[in-house]
Amino acid sequence: MPQPVIKFTRGVPPPESFPTQEISDCAISLLANDPDIVLQYGTSGGYPPLRHYLAGQAGVADNRIAIGEGSLQLADIAARIMLDPGSIVYIESPSYDRSINIFRRAGATLVGLPLEEDGIDIAALAARLAGGERPVLFYIIPDFQNPSGTVLSMEKRQALANLAEQYGFWIVEDSPYRRLRYHGHENPSLYELAPQRVLRMSSFSKLISPGLRVGYMLLPESVAPAFLKFAEDTYISSSYFTQGIVYEYIRRGLLEPNIARLKTLYQARLDCMLEALGHEMGDLATWHKPEGGFFVGMTLQGDFDTPELLARAAHAGLLLSDGRGFFPEQTRQCFIRLPFCALTPEEIQSGITRLAEVVRSMLDK
Amino acid sequence: MPQPVIKFTRGVPPPESFPTQEISDCAISLLANDPDIVLQYGTSGGYPPLRHYLAGQAGVADNRIAIGEGSLQLADIAARIMLDPGSIVYIESPSYDRSINIFRRAGATLVGLPLEEDGIDIAALAARLAGGERPVLFYIIPDFQNPSGTVLSMEKRQALANLAEQYGFWIVEDSPYRRLRYHGHENPSLYELAPQRVLRMSSFSKLISPGLRVGYMLLPESVAPAFLKFAEDTYISSSYFTQGIVYEYIRRGLLEPNIARLKTLYQARLDCMLEALGHEMGDLATWHKPEGGFFVGMTLQGDFDTPELLARAAHAGLLLSDGRGFFPEQTRQCFIRLPFCALTPEEIQSGITRLAEVVRSMLDK
Repeated sequence: MPQPVIKFTRGVPPPESFPTQEISDCAISLLANDPDIVLQYGTSGGYPPLRHYLAGQAGVADNRIAIGEGSLQLADIAARIMLDPGSIVYIESPSYDRSINIFRRAGATLVGLPLEEDGIDIAALAARLAGGERPVLFYIIPDFQNPSGTVLSMEKRQALANLAEQYGFWIVEDSPYRRLRYHGHENPSLYELAPQRVLRMSSFSKLISPGLRVGYMLLPESVAPAFLKFAEDTYISSSYFTQGIVYEYIRRGLLEPNIARLKTLYQARLDCMLEALGHEMGDLATWHKPEGGFFVGMTLQGDFDTPELLARAAHAGLLLSDGRGFFPEQTRQCFIRLPFCALTPEEIQSGITRLAEVVRSMLDK
Repeated sequence: MPQPVIKFTRGVPPPESFPTQEISDCAISLLANDPDIVLQYGTSGGYPPLRHYLAGQAGVADNRIAIGEGSLQLADIAARIMLDPGSIVYIESPSYDRSINIFRRAGATLVGLPLEEDGIDIAALAARLAGGERPVLFYIIPDFQNPSGTVLSMEKRQALANLAEQYGFWIVEDSPYRRLRYHGHENPSLYELAPQRVLRMSSFSKLISPGLRVGYMLLPESVAPAFLKFAEDTYISSSYFTQGIVYEYIRRGLLEPNIARLKTLYQARLDCMLEALGHEMGDLATWHKPEGGFFVGMTLQGDFDTPELLARAAHAGLLLSDGRGFFPEQTRQCFIRLPFCALTPEEIQSGITRLAEVVRSMLDK
């Protein structure tokens, strides 16, 4: 009998992370208390109490917050209003494949900045800017990056913030994993360092549930009116009902205990992943050791044909994402993204053992 | 003391139309029975049971249905994948202002076809096509049109279906009000007459609640794969949670009784509107007598300056939409959209009395 397939593919939270009963309680209470508002059309800014909460957290006026059905949708709107064909967009290399697609679809010319252990290569960035290149924006995931797991260091954050101010480009700070830190200490967000230059996006998909589809973007004053109008012209409003559930969840004081619970759940899985990698893959690959988030990003040592690797892994009951999709340009690296949150420690151990066997089988040929 | 303001502006359902308790019951049951699916990310096609139900209603395979957060969002995707700058889009004149904007934003050249009592001027359409013009699509609201309230006649439906097949253009059939017929008999949908040429869109916003944000599109086989991929690349999935509530609502047999309840509620408001118009505006304007939907569309007789009309109405405690926004081209008509579903009979009577006074005051000057 074949072993069950292990999926190292999408970075989604596991069902055991969902606070189902609390969501149900919040839904009932919301419908009892605010039905006329949450069952009606709303504005593209979002359910006012949640918007006000998010604005308060950032210390800005409510009208600088847009709440949508996930932050990808909001990145799409930012791309549509801020970019023209040929606009230059800087992006980490590798980066989130769906974001690469969003910017490419808007006609942008993507320029990948190589990732190092502590985030992007700042010297390369400074050199491009000094050479006269003028990006409209830099899309960056500074905390527990997708797909690499890296964190942008404090020094590089400050340098990036300074360059954005000096050269007048926008930073799109994508921050869905920031609260999921299992070890070490938090750096300031890019928004905190360069509030005038940053569009900050995040969501409740990783902190409560993706199915509610509630993400948000903190917009610069100069961008917010056009952004909110464009969003309204696209979908009128996202669901006040699900946004109201998120607000009620926060209002009841459930968010912080839930994040603590998730950290306990995921930390054990990250630790197991790193231990298994150390055991099985130490001589085959390099990887960063993330302190949080959803992913370990691994690069195989030597020349590997990615399609062959994926095929052999699938044959061994192991599903992998095509690592080439995370790069804004062609790459010769054989990169593997390993999501660990939605797998049990047993599945992680077994999956890494299989992966090591597959890689060794390709070295032997 | 000034009288309360009466809003003849947005065509939204009234709070008393929301089946709040049933929605709450459906949410509880859904979270008890299917939490792992509805709280997770999904596909851009939508929550499988609802998708299967909608496909079954149309007699097509499930993979031809896309469920999104309202049908406007889906029209935006259709526009983005089907239109290039300069593509010709036919549209009723007047039509839904948000749709005009969606197609214009995609770079389309909009061509307005004049509306008559029984729908578009088919002779004008046939003449344009015979003259060699080649539209990519015709966006049309055949049932209780927004903003005019007209219904496309059976004869014109058949003629439009035949022309679409003969000349190979798509029909985007926007059908949110179809089920809300208060008098008379239903015609077949354009999809039933030309299933190969129609993208049909509708939603549950007017039948259950807008706040759930559940709309859908029935796609031609040749369009569906690219559409679903584009939607996934834009927002991954819309909320399975709210889609699951809609499905549970239908599964419990609540939809048809709710539609019957809404018809009773809205029919009285339509009848009151028509009676008030007959009394107050008979010598001032012309209008179609709708048999369903949300709107009466009225054209003032004579030359009126729309901005002055809006200003005088506002001064009299009456908010009106700017009728010029419903036309794809400049118009000299002074057109007023009168939504009647969200106003009580008393408000309707009082609003029309005020409107007649405002119009008369402009004739007297």
